[in-house]
Amino acid sequence: MAGSRGEYRKSAQRREQIVEAAFAVFAKAGYTASSVSQIAREVGMTQAGVLHHFAGGKTALLEAVLERRDERAEQVLEGRRGTGFLAGLVEISREQAGLRGAVQLYTILSAEATDPDHPAHERFRDRVERIASAVANAYAEARADGALREGVEPRAAALSTLAMTEGLELLWLNGQDVDMAEAIRAHINTFLAEPLQPALPGARQTADQPTPTAR
Amino acid sequence: MAGSRGEYRKSAQRREQIVEAAFAVFAKAGYTASSVSQIAREVGMTQAGVLHHFAGGKTALLEAVLERRDERAEQVLEGRRGTGFLAGLVEISREQAGLRGAVQLYTILSAEATDPDHPAHERFRDRVERIASAVANAYAEARADGALREGVEPRAAALSTLAMTEGLELLWLNGQDVDMAEAIRAHINTFLAEPLQPALPGARQTADQPTPTAR
Repeated sequence: MAGSRGEYRKSAQRREQIVEAAFAVFAKAGYTASSVSQIAREVGMTQAGVLHHFAGGKTALLEAVLERRDERAEQVLEGRRGTGFLAGLVEISREQAGLRGAVQLYTILSAEATDPDHPAHERFRDRVERIASAVANAYAEARADGALREGVEPRAAALSTLAMTEGLELLWLNGQDVDMAEAIRAHINTFLAEPLQPALPGARQTADQPTPTAR
Repeated sequence: MAGSRGEYRKSAQRREQIVEAAFAVFAKAGYTASSVSQIAREVGMTQAGVLHHFAGGKTALLEAVLERRDERAEQVLEGRRGTGFLAGLVEISREQAGLRGAVQLYTILSAEATDPDHPAHERFRDRVERIASAVANAYAEARADGALREGVEPRAAALSTLAMTEGLELLWLNGQDVDMAEAIRAHINTFLAEPLQPALPGARQTADQPTPTAR
């Protein structure tokens, strides 16, 4: 019993190491140009060893890497609704600013996956739709609470919010001085009757630098 | 003389064919995973033959592919200023909607190039800065003409416009039903005292479908 628990723990650690290695390799070379054998080398295993833990091969490794990103977002958003959920999006964005590698990896993978022949194409389409629905739902709840401006359509506001989020990440990765979290907060506020509260004390201030938040 | 003119024309045609092939190969596999020999095969030449026309190799081919996209944008924007320039951005976006392959290629390349070690990293950073400056300049001209809303900061409006443009392209490539041109027009209008004129008759109408344009 103890032995099998130990085995399980060891296997979970191994999986964790492999996912870390997959993350690093994908981030460096992109998904298309990466191989399972590269990932195996990175973690000091054989290709067969990696496939023992991830029978689905490179696609399964991609899933694991993406799930890890989504899990964190789900933790932040759990149990929230309406404007509370929207404020959560700003918090997630603030975290992202400290995780350049993760943002870069996700940007590269989601761009590659726009190719309809890409093995993860459907997965990314579904993911975008799932996120768009969740954000639209939050805007609909905000509307029911009387928190939306007159005439704002929840689905349209959600797509606009997602587009702004993705676009700001790309500009930021390309060296532009943008405060993503504050810019997204300001963008969400254009749809709300009452603005989301500003950044907490200690968050990066934007007063003396140009950001896309000014109106 | 006639012979050398003929040679020149033939060489220009060859270059054109090679750029087309590079476009197709990059669009399919991304920049990192593509090779000059693949591009040569596509156009029925040897690798040495391609390198005769593009001595800089894969990087030079990438430059040529990107320049072609930018040339078209420059044609549309030439001689325009202020809100006329901003209206040009909407026109470019409308053209893009008919060029899925080009938008996809650019999205993949610019995502790959966010890696500081990518050979085209500096080029993409510079390109983003050049575009941001040009758009900020147009907003500044609009402000001088009294065409901006009170308190709009040209540079911030420019970055916001670029982020929205890039983000909408990604959502569109990921299967979301967004009318990019109309969404960008609506976004630019949030900064203007007088809205840009709506879509010309014959342009896709958005009345009965959700787009990020609604407010």
